[in-house]
Amino acid sequence: MKKDIIGIIGLGYVGLPLALAFSRKKHVIGFDRDKERINQLKRGIDKNNEFKKKLKIKNKNVNFTNKSNLLRECNIFIVTVPTPVTKTNLPDLKLLSNACQTVGKYIKKNSIFILESTVYPGCLEEYCVPIIEKISKLKFNKDFFCGYSPERVNPGDQKHTIERITKIISASNLQTLSTMKNLYKLVTKKLHIANSIKVAESAKVIENIQRDINIALMNEISIVLKKMNISTKEVLDAASTKWNFLKFTPGLVGGHCIGVDPYYFTYKARKIKYEPKVILSGRSINNRMAKYVFNKISYMKKKFFGKMKIKILILGIAFKENISDIRNSQVIKILKMMKSSDYKIYVYDPHIDKNKNFLSKKINFLNKLNKINFFDAIFIGTPHKKIIKIGGKKIKSFCKQKSFIFDLKSSLNKKFVDDSL
Amino acid sequence: MKKDIIGIIGLGYVGLPLALAFSRKKHVIGFDRDKERINQLKRGIDKNNEFKKKLKIKNKNVNFTNKSNLLRECNIFIVTVPTPVTKTNLPDLKLLSNACQTVGKYIKKNSIFILESTVYPGCLEEYCVPIIEKISKLKFNKDFFCGYSPERVNPGDQKHTIERITKIISASNLQTLSTMKNLYKLVTKKLHIANSIKVAESAKVIENIQRDINIALMNEISIVLKKMNISTKEVLDAASTKWNFLKFTPGLVGGHCIGVDPYYFTYKARKIKYEPKVILSGRSINNRMAKYVFNKISYMKKKFFGKMKIKILILGIAFKENISDIRNSQVIKILKMMKSSDYKIYVYDPHIDKNKNFLSKKINFLNKLNKINFFDAIFIGTPHKKIIKIGGKKIKSFCKQKSFIFDLKSSLNKKFVDDSL
Repeated sequence: MKKDIIGIIGLGYVGLPLALAFSRKKHVIGFDRDKERINQLKRGIDKNNEFKKKLKIKNKNVNFTNKSNLLRECNIFIVTVPTPVTKTNLPDLKLLSNACQTVGKYIKKNSIFILESTVYPGCLEEYCVPIIEKISKLKFNKDFFCGYSPERVNPGDQKHTIERITKIISASNLQTLSTMKNLYKLVTKKLHIANSIKVAESAKVIENIQRDINIALMNEISIVLKKMNISTKEVLDAASTKWNFLKFTPGLVGGHCIGVDPYYFTYKARKIKYEPKVILSGRSINNRMAKYVFNKISYMKKKFFGKMKIKILILGIAFKENISDIRNSQVIKILKMMKSSDYKIYVYDPHIDKNKNFLSKKINFLNKLNKINFFDAIFIGTPHKKIIKIGGKKIKSFCKQKSFIFDLKSSLNKKFVDDSL
Repeated sequence: MKKDIIGIIGLGYVGLPLALAFSRKKHVIGFDRDKERINQLKRGIDKNNEFKKKLKIKNKNVNFTNKSNLLRECNIFIVTVPTPVTKTNLPDLKLLSNACQTVGKYIKKNSIFILESTVYPGCLEEYCVPIIEKISKLKFNKDFFCGYSPERVNPGDQKHTIERITKIISASNLQTLSTMKNLYKLVTKKLHIANSIKVAESAKVIENIQRDINIALMNEISIVLKKMNISTKEVLDAASTKWNFLKFTPGLVGGHCIGVDPYYFTYKARKIKYEPKVILSGRSINNRMAKYVFNKISYMKKKFFGKMKIKILILGIAFKENISDIRNSQVIKILKMMKSSDYKIYVYDPHIDKNKNFLSKKINFLNKLNKINFFDAIFIGTPHKKIIKIGGKKIKSFCKQKSFIFDLKSSLNKKFVDDSL
């Protein structure tokens, strides 16, 4: 074990913390194709803001590189690339395929390939292994070995970091399992051993499915209640006084996990001829929520201003609270609908770099909130703590007298709010 | 308040504990149409076994009766009748209608009608009140008043009794709310005031919907995993090591709450022209689980015994663990399928009275488990604590050498078990 060199392929939300954690005990090669990311990391900068202190990243034991040939030295390869979906919501395995090809190129006899990305059950053995075998000309479970240890990174969550959670491990044979046990116990609090790679793959993918369906249920309930003029927030406050009620709330499901992982499972289910209607019904309603919210806002706009073009301020556009990630943000989906309609759009998000190229010239990105008595409407899209802290009264003061506030997740005191989910 | 006489209409799982709780502080008339139930209660017997000590029931302050005219004395009427569904899964409001007619007959000016039964949002004001108004010739919110305080009875659960939970209350005006507050604080630990009756109705009905959909999701996942030969139990054990995973398991949803309440909500949703697909997809899969389990057992039977008629022992038939209630038990649904097939059926359920008339002569109801080396198969339907305590080894000893055990909820050590969900 002492001479292990670990290659981490993919240095995003998952790979970077993993590389840094391992680097305290082992020599690590951190590989990412993104040259800009590597340059930033070399300077100690994590644009995702998961690591705010430079010292944490700068580190003698981890060698950040965008040159794959440095992986030649490694005997353990850990792949942490994103596994998104295509436009038609099918697994998009391009990045995973690239990563496996890279591993195939540099893997040697007796090395271990470990996957941390979320996949469908069976993906590692049925999809990844053949690629590696083909390119490396090595034989699986004879020349090289595999493991699956799903990442449990929760962006923006400083509490459940890798050091503090239980991590699932699984491997293609007992000896590899034992190696992985010794490896992962260096960086994580507790290990759970799954009996097979497929069990571990399944465990990971269903975690986010459960969240997705629970939010979908709340969205469905809120749509029905709204039609009856019943406050969803009041209903949930009341229901939450039952000892076993689960405090989910309606909302937009964006990002690259909860809204994506279910499609990996449903893809596999359909492959084996089962139509997973519960999961897909959840996905369907969650996908329609952006349009639903846009319609609600447009309804208010019409009520207040008719067809007049109005100045709307969107507070928060990240895909979830207190982070800077905008991938698959449903607030941005709503923003785009507004762009094609009668809205002059202003955006304030304290977590987002205003130079993000998604923001066209048509949109005014504010660095400060100092326009008093200025907006016709405010849409609280992503209620970051930094936004809620401003307070309903002050937020209301940014609006003209005749104006409305749509507070998506009922984050403000309701006396300042005109509508919410 | 001192002279209040409370009439409780319906003395089942909800009404009896409520009547007993109130009787410690107030005079109570406990009315139920079921003469046998009244006779038993008068003798201190609760066939539901929620109250095992006679003293708890026998009580000077509660007058059990099946004569509705005794309700004449009451100024507060609390209706706790069941609200089941019809064969086509629509709200069956017959019992509620009868109860409202009874209340209408005896309600006087300034009295309060309180509903505790689970209904759809709007039911009290739109359905109950008109019945009472019509029969009593009194005017709602002028002559008489209403409240809704949903029951939160969990059969078999001695921990979350009315005295120990938070109870939601809501009323048709502020004065009634104040009366209800004083009333219910006599019997419950904490009160939560809902802003309207509709909010309280909604809160209650969604609690069980949430449970239903979460079990449905687990059922869907288990069906897919089983098709892939992946152990659902192992997957859930692994997923449960994540800090926010909710420990639901696949299973049969029977009884008179979780499998029924969602239809009240979906009925109302459809009335207002919204198709609640998430909730209905959950209902649909949960409804199909009995047939699915029967098919799994039949598959094993065929594998082990071909078309031979086999002796099968069903352990546990109540709709859930550790109670005697068999209403809408899905295990009994499976039992009925077996009856029409090549099974000689033996049943053991320590919670069930063997004289229950649902058990035809075709079924052998055992009072003791003493047939060693006797059965071809065992189906653990409802894993009561008393059944699990027997242990896998002993349970296996009831079987012939060539036999199989289907352990629905993976309750036994898996080395004794041939299949499960």
